[in-house]
Amino acid sequence: MPSGSVTTPKGFRAGGLHCGLKKTERHDLGAIVCEVPAAAAGVYTLNAFQAAPLRVTQESIAASGKLQAMIVNSGNANACTGKQGEDDARAMRAAAAQALGVDEHHVGVTSTGVIGELLPMAKVLSGIEQLPQRVKADGGDDFCQAILTTDLAQKMTCVRLAVNGKEVHIAGAAKGSGMIHPNMATMLGFITTDANIESGNLQLLLSRITDSTFNMITVDGDTSTNDMVVAMASGLAGNDTLHPGHPDWEAFAAGLQYVGEYLAKAIARDGEGATKLIEVNVAGADSEEAARAIAKTVVGSSLVKSACYGADANWGRIIAAVGRSGQPVNTETVDIRLGDIAVLEQSRPVLFDEEKAAEYLKGEFIQIHVNLHMGSGMATGWGCDLTYDYVRINAAYRT
Amino acid sequence: MPSGSVTTPKGFRAGGLHCGLKKTERHDLGAIVCEVPAAAAGVYTLNAFQAAPLRVTQESIAASGKLQAMIVNSGNANACTGKQGEDDARAMRAAAAQALGVDEHHVGVTSTGVIGELLPMAKVLSGIEQLPQRVKADGGDDFCQAILTTDLAQKMTCVRLAVNGKEVHIAGAAKGSGMIHPNMATMLGFITTDANIESGNLQLLLSRITDSTFNMITVDGDTSTNDMVVAMASGLAGNDTLHPGHPDWEAFAAGLQYVGEYLAKAIARDGEGATKLIEVNVAGADSEEAARAIAKTVVGSSLVKSACYGADANWGRIIAAVGRSGQPVNTETVDIRLGDIAVLEQSRPVLFDEEKAAEYLKGEFIQIHVNLHMGSGMATGWGCDLTYDYVRINAAYRT
Repeated sequence: MPSGSVTTPKGFRAGGLHCGLKKTERHDLGAIVCEVPAAAAGVYTLNAFQAAPLRVTQESIAASGKLQAMIVNSGNANACTGKQGEDDARAMRAAAAQALGVDEHHVGVTSTGVIGELLPMAKVLSGIEQLPQRVKADGGDDFCQAILTTDLAQKMTCVRLAVNGKEVHIAGAAKGSGMIHPNMATMLGFITTDANIESGNLQLLLSRITDSTFNMITVDGDTSTNDMVVAMASGLAGNDTLHPGHPDWEAFAAGLQYVGEYLAKAIARDGEGATKLIEVNVAGADSEEAARAIAKTVVGSSLVKSACYGADANWGRIIAAVGRSGQPVNTETVDIRLGDIAVLEQSRPVLFDEEKAAEYLKGEFIQIHVNLHMGSGMATGWGCDLTYDYVRINAAYRT
Repeated sequence: MPSGSVTTPKGFRAGGLHCGLKKTERHDLGAIVCEVPAAAAGVYTLNAFQAAPLRVTQESIAASGKLQAMIVNSGNANACTGKQGEDDARAMRAAAAQALGVDEHHVGVTSTGVIGELLPMAKVLSGIEQLPQRVKADGGDDFCQAILTTDLAQKMTCVRLAVNGKEVHIAGAAKGSGMIHPNMATMLGFITTDANIESGNLQLLLSRITDSTFNMITVDGDTSTNDMVVAMASGLAGNDTLHPGHPDWEAFAAGLQYVGEYLAKAIARDGEGATKLIEVNVAGADSEEAARAIAKTVVGSSLVKSACYGADANWGRIIAAVGRSGQPVNTETVDIRLGDIAVLEQSRPVLFDEEKAAEYLKGEFIQIHVNLHMGSGMATGWGCDLTYDYVRINAAYRT
């Protein structure tokens, strides 16, 4: 994997700055800008209370399938803010369009932070005015900082592949679930590529990979009002336009899948208070849908998460989570492994070395394998352990 | 409310003793025994991995709609134990029938504790032999202790009402979610009454009240393999047989509802690590089903639970939970109150006194009111806060 950021694909610049939404002097406003209007696609939260900026971004993409700039603020989610919130999101879009010299319907808007408080628009607008000087070819790091809240780690990646012999890059940046005043976990993803691909096909692929990447992580089961992943394709790699019949279509899809999965795992690993990444692999399920539901139920179980934190090989909690998933299960044919250690075979307990299992569970990456031996449905889900720090972070008073 | 236990209704005796399943000298085997075969009804876990004793109890009730004895052990759930587990549950039933002098198909069996370990049958059978001397008219307390694991409080109640001018009692005992070697939360409920009512009608009422009581509590979203509530009616109050057309049918139903709700709230309040009882009242939902789903989503949200622990009036988490419930929501018409304090009206933030709200949330009983202003669906759910102790209890190694 080459090092790289969202500015590595040809045509993209990015940047970030502090405009005053966060109390400390950390970046809280950022932008990704493309030389040309880029084919765009987006996926959005299923929470009924979708925040205003998500509606504005969808409107922009719907206009022509293209975005030339994405702006983002952290520290305030602009959610549950009514008519004024919508007006503010539109004002951000208009100001960014003017400052960056792009069409208004080529600008998307993202926010993350406190729910139900109006944006301090004077600060936001004065920050937007400074964006043009801050948006640079090497501004990927600054952008990444601007989208973080209390995330402990920056999350970005970049892959390179060949399409028609042309070098194509796919890069991504994400923020996960960190506490913010007053703590709302929001997942944001930004993917840039210089591939030549139309908006509709980019959307097709983004939706496809989202189901097996971003939608397969859980920190605490709470879906934010502001979750969004946006992809922008500049087309500047100069390859023949990618479409489902193109010989390199699947290679490009695999690259996008890699970037999505990398970011999704990074978000799970950096969940609030987390000390470990937990991966649940489900095989032999009745369908892929069933496998996904089972993987998410197991990785989202507070009891499984607590047991991972305590390095307790408590497979009873895993089988109980499988059983309550609401999916078809043959109660006589389930295998469970913790890493390489078999603990249940054909639904019967296996004598295993408890010390070895505890040693394995003390690691920072735990794989739980569940095989139902019913069908060919497979899925993988990611999450993190449940720790004292999760409670500490989320019990803290909003001050 | 009269004081009383499961032995207060006419015809019931109960008791408990230590047979060696728990490491400390606390009761781990108990029984409720009726003078006559009692009309019986049961509700059982929806977890696909239903434990062996639940299957045996269902089989007994199916035979003639009657139970004369319920035996229970704590310390071992006899779940995921295969053919041997079923044989063991049947052996417990046979031994109890012989020791207590009742028909085998009039005996129900319940277990709670570790999943996936075989019962130490020598200890269990020797304990069952001692049951006849321990089962007494004043043995309700002993029984209650035998079903507890690390529950901090005994959970029992009794109500009295008149049916045809005859004094009728309805009593209940329950265990909730305490840690046990190696920690599996199980909810068990036992209801006794001296009312004269047939098994089918008792089942009708038990199923009805379960939907609005036991099924409306959540501690951590994990459904046990061993959850069960059993009701036994001795008929010794001598009232005319209760049926849906009986003038006192609804009064009896209300009594049963009271007992179920009392036990359900006691279980929620005594959830693992809990310091508070949280009640979520949903009104104005599209349907009763929608109201129940919304109430359970809010009261089960880790973020809402953490905020209650931290006395943080973070209503954004409440609205986000409503929005992800999957139920119909009008995003413009939602009211939220914390106790008497309005924090959201018509989906718009209300300026409220943060200090007053924090003071309210520091209490041991928190009521969250959500009105969707869409229809007439109403429901109430109960849960508890998420605390450091929940993590401590559930991260502990099984030793």
